[in-house]
Amino acid sequence: MRTPRENRFSPHTPLGEGAEFDAIRRMLERWGPRARRIGDDAAVITSVGERSLVVSTDTSVENVHFRREWLAAREIGYRAAAAALSDLAAMAAKPIGMLTALTVPEAWRDELDAITDGIGEASEMADAPIIGGDMTTGGELSLNFTVLGTVRNVLFRTSSRPGDRIYVTGRLGGPLSALRDFQAGRIPSDETRIRFAHPVPRIAEALWLSENGASAALDISDGLAAELGHLAAASRVVVTVALEEVPAMAGMSALEVAGSGEEYELIVTAPADLDTLEFTKRFRIGLTRIGDVTSGPARVVLTQGGESVNPPTGYFHFTD
Amino acid sequence: MRTPRENRFSPHTPLGEGAEFDAIRRMLERWGPRARRIGDDAAVITSVGERSLVVSTDTSVENVHFRREWLAAREIGYRAAAAALSDLAAMAAKPIGMLTALTVPEAWRDELDAITDGIGEASEMADAPIIGGDMTTGGELSLNFTVLGTVRNVLFRTSSRPGDRIYVTGRLGGPLSALRDFQAGRIPSDETRIRFAHPVPRIAEALWLSENGASAALDISDGLAAELGHLAAASRVVVTVALEEVPAMAGMSALEVAGSGEEYELIVTAPADLDTLEFTKRFRIGLTRIGDVTSGPARVVLTQGGESVNPPTGYFHFTD
Repeated sequence: MRTPRENRFSPHTPLGEGAEFDAIRRMLERWGPRARRIGDDAAVITSVGERSLVVSTDTSVENVHFRREWLAAREIGYRAAAAALSDLAAMAAKPIGMLTALTVPEAWRDELDAITDGIGEASEMADAPIIGGDMTTGGELSLNFTVLGTVRNVLFRTSSRPGDRIYVTGRLGGPLSALRDFQAGRIPSDETRIRFAHPVPRIAEALWLSENGASAALDISDGLAAELGHLAAASRVVVTVALEEVPAMAGMSALEVAGSGEEYELIVTAPADLDTLEFTKRFRIGLTRIGDVTSGPARVVLTQGGESVNPPTGYFHFTD
Repeated sequence: MRTPRENRFSPHTPLGEGAEFDAIRRMLERWGPRARRIGDDAAVITSVGERSLVVSTDTSVENVHFRREWLAAREIGYRAAAAALSDLAAMAAKPIGMLTALTVPEAWRDELDAITDGIGEASEMADAPIIGGDMTTGGELSLNFTVLGTVRNVLFRTSSRPGDRIYVTGRLGGPLSALRDFQAGRIPSDETRIRFAHPVPRIAEALWLSENGASAALDISDGLAAELGHLAAASRVVVTVALEEVPAMAGMSALEVAGSGEEYELIVTAPADLDTLEFTKRFRIGLTRIGDVTSGPARVVLTQGGESVNPPTGYFHFTD
């Protein structure tokens, strides 16, 4: 147990005894200033002010979202946290903090420091301090994150309008390409492996987009085609996308690219005057027009070479 | 997929296609008005106002927090949500909503409706609408809840002062008694079974206590003795409790009662003028003085018949 003197300078509530609390103390030491005021029954946020609060929760489970043999423990922690933070980007919210609920089996205990460091890396990258959490044992490693942010103008997925153009950030297909290599026992290229292991939530990009005329956004977790379906349903519009316009990782077909999940790039709709050049200059990633929003009963039309093509059947997730 | 006409009157964002979304649609139907504005990348809360926001996350895992053969699926859903909501009570927060992240193995799919109903029951009881969530497959059933509330005067665990008295709500020992019966293959009594299967977060009680002079509070998830340790550490005080004063379920020894976890009753500290009779009249549960807070290096002193006794070694959780 820490002495009172140490506690006086701690940013956290002094913790009692027990193995769980020893583990939490160890995590807090590794997180340093990235963790704030941990240790009471709940986190308290006093500074929401006039902005709306945005909250999302996301779980990454061993053998569903990753396999132990594919990623380093630090990458597993980072990737799970980044996936959750990406939902804040999808709403154009500025992170204010996150809570992490970990289920850590005995067989993973030796990796907890590395997982902790990966979570800390994501927290620092997104400027989202760790303000609370929970830890339990269990039969499989599971990392749940609840992310909180504030926003003035939410980028809902319901507000695409006929006449809007459809854009995508970055280049798609990397995660699926890496996944296929992992599954086949091959070593993915550095370029695709990093897209799988180290996705980057487009938080600053989304904020800029919301301030520069974007009408709606989603992040790509289920694959481009599936997310376009969600967009069409939510906004009650026809979403037409030319697959050859989608920036693709080398070696991936257009349909593979449209089915690649866990990209965490953004799909954005906006009127025609969106300044994509300014975006790319600022963020050093592409913002590519891939299609258009028109009126009509909610549906997705994918084309290739001017011909309509069937969407990839579902999400190429390795467990589905 | 719902038709646009139905969607116009839905409180939710229209969802796209896919098995996961079919499952979510089904859950939303069962929850009815208890679920609000589900379906975008994140939940948006606009009404925090001048109050502080309180957030907590809690996970219940199969074979760690419950066993399938002990509880009905509806009870599993209810109990996991109630456990999370209890952390709002521990801070004296008024619930504003909750997010539910479920890991549902194939073998549990047929029970999802019943789990959903149990979650809905907890949501209604606590007046905490379901405002978001996540669902994934996995190897073991896991139910994570993030609960959000607002509060004017937070009941931290750091603010007990020497001279305060220590109180506990309700009657302890039921969950451990039921657990022992389950483990021995016996049928617990109705009285102890309901304390295990259907704990009640003391939300209204905590609000009243915070408005009537309480200085600190915790909910009992790890057992009375362990929580007193957390209180002593957090407030940097000596916590002295006479075990014979703790209201006990029949047939349980004082030390067993002090080690019974997952009670979700409250430990409260307050100056001597707290009106316990008014509390009991109002809430129909006991608020019993069990000890005192004094100054000195943080520690717990348990007594029985005037003699100091050793605390139960750790938490009598069935996996520890």
